[in-house]
Amino acid sequence: MKNSCREIKNALKGARSAIIATHVDPDGDAIGSMLALGMILEHLELETHYYAADSVPRIYRFLPGSEKIKRAVTDFHHFDVGFVVDASDISRVGDKIELRKIAARIVNIDHHPDNTQFGDINCVRRSSCVGELIYDLAKFLKIKLDKPMADCLYTSIITDTGNFRYDNTNAKTFLIASELIKAGVNTAELTTRIYDTKSVPGVRISAQALSNIKFSEDRKVAWTAVSEEMMAAANARPEDLIGIVDAIRAIEGVEVAVFFREEKEKVKINFRSKERVNVSEIARRFGGGGHLKASGAVVAGQLAEVEERVIGEVVKRIWTA
Amino acid sequence: MKNSCREIKNALKGARSAIIATHVDPDGDAIGSMLALGMILEHLELETHYYAADSVPRIYRFLPGSEKIKRAVTDFHHFDVGFVVDASDISRVGDKIELRKIAARIVNIDHHPDNTQFGDINCVRRSSCVGELIYDLAKFLKIKLDKPMADCLYTSIITDTGNFRYDNTNAKTFLIASELIKAGVNTAELTTRIYDTKSVPGVRISAQALSNIKFSEDRKVAWTAVSEEMMAAANARPEDLIGIVDAIRAIEGVEVAVFFREEKEKVKINFRSKERVNVSEIARRFGGGGHLKASGAVVAGQLAEVEERVIGEVVKRIWTA
Repeated sequence: MKNSCREIKNALKGARSAIIATHVDPDGDAIGSMLALGMILEHLELETHYYAADSVPRIYRFLPGSEKIKRAVTDFHHFDVGFVVDASDISRVGDKIELRKIAARIVNIDHHPDNTQFGDINCVRRSSCVGELIYDLAKFLKIKLDKPMADCLYTSIITDTGNFRYDNTNAKTFLIASELIKAGVNTAELTTRIYDTKSVPGVRISAQALSNIKFSEDRKVAWTAVSEEMMAAANARPEDLIGIVDAIRAIEGVEVAVFFREEKEKVKINFRSKERVNVSEIARRFGGGGHLKASGAVVAGQLAEVEERVIGEVVKRIWTA
Repeated sequence: MKNSCREIKNALKGARSAIIATHVDPDGDAIGSMLALGMILEHLELETHYYAADSVPRIYRFLPGSEKIKRAVTDFHHFDVGFVVDASDISRVGDKIELRKIAARIVNIDHHPDNTQFGDINCVRRSSCVGELIYDLAKFLKIKLDKPMADCLYTSIITDTGNFRYDNTNAKTFLIASELIKAGVNTAELTTRIYDTKSVPGVRISAQALSNIKFSEDRKVAWTAVSEEMMAAANARPEDLIGIVDAIRAIEGVEVAVFFREEKEKVKINFRSKERVNVSEIARRFGGGGHLKASGAVVAGQLAEVEERVIGEVVKRIWTA
């Protein structure tokens, strides 16, 4: 890490402008690490631009500087340095900008194990989140951690660790969290802003979906489905459905949770596994993909028919897992 | 803290037996701090007994030593030291044992601001949880933190801070969490055991309760109620209701969440506040009490009538808050 921090420091010598880009559909780590890095660069008096192909999710718009993140690069066409944060490959930035053309050098700051080392400088390390790497960079550059930066880094951490729940949470994560509190983070306020923003239709549709949970005979597979009719009746939006599959997974004894959602003659499916079952394999069988314990797919067909077919496959996998 | 640690150390000199008691309806901090303290005492070769008036909630039964916690004191009638953890007053231990009669000295280890200093030795300090105080005691006594003790202390912390979400979470809390990880805590495994163990009746009754949420006109107060009939139909137990009031509080714009539960001609009420409203004052008005943002009361009467009366009061408070 020290070596790559030194490389970044050298790259910044004499640089006057920078662009920071992150992956499409940015999450809290993408936004938080981008903004914290921007604070470092602005502190070093670089003209700093911020780019994400998709808009900043509503729950992260309270973060200081989030309004600077643009979905296009227009008024400034060349940058001395192009940073990419939280992307395993430069293609994850999306195809609306050509970063290699508009930036003289690419600095790749990431924590994904499958990172393709696409940068001129690669600062890639296993860590709970990219925010941790930006924290280390700020320390290396002796830049004071203030409350705005601490809020961004804390958001990075809690997003990527599921608020200290996933197994990427380590001793260093907590040490950094401790420093961020000293720098002014109010955990209650920040987590309220990020987590306590359920909409009323969201609560209603979730309650309805959870009332209808079905189980396999051995109760190891549990699932529910939301139809377009239910969505319309509850006046709910797709983002209101976030968390339903995790609530199913949280049921004692459930090994695999599946959530089906009807959308325009197709069915969107989310899979979650608790311990043993690799749900990315199941998702791949239906043309999707993802992680070992969280994956997804989109299948053409009628809701009831897709439900039956997919659950049949999941139940089969449980037996062989 | 150092002074009271020294006092405890002196009290333990020559002592051969101890009993540790905690409050009725023990929670994760009560159980976790009791067991970790017991590990210290057993390490010092005291014959150690564990007492709680009510049984250990199912989700904490994986904690090492939890099977030693008894609901009666029978085979041993006198103790050199009687510890009380996580209780603001000795009466919170319940009336089934008379601790002052069966223990030569009482040691009071607690973090409630309204603690009545009821012990012969009082180790009372503001801290996120009693687990923090036990951690300090172990350090003071130079007792090695091993995985079993770390699991107990981590459970204390996450229970009382809402997994690092409440505003009692501070820099020291995270520093200790970091040390507990080094001692072997697996956050993913532990939080799965504590949080991902919803029962099926629990999911059903929660879904039903959340389907019935009502709102005040300005939508700042939201509440729901569960009747004995609903409980029986869902085959649900009281512990299945945990989390409903927090789910209501998580709705955007809601300032105060209230949960009513009918039980034997009485109504148990939980209050949660998001930011401005002091719900302990409201609870006190109905004979209850608690914290600024989390409080409770038990009111005699019919569910519908109590609901109307209490919500009327909450709505009035919102206007003056």
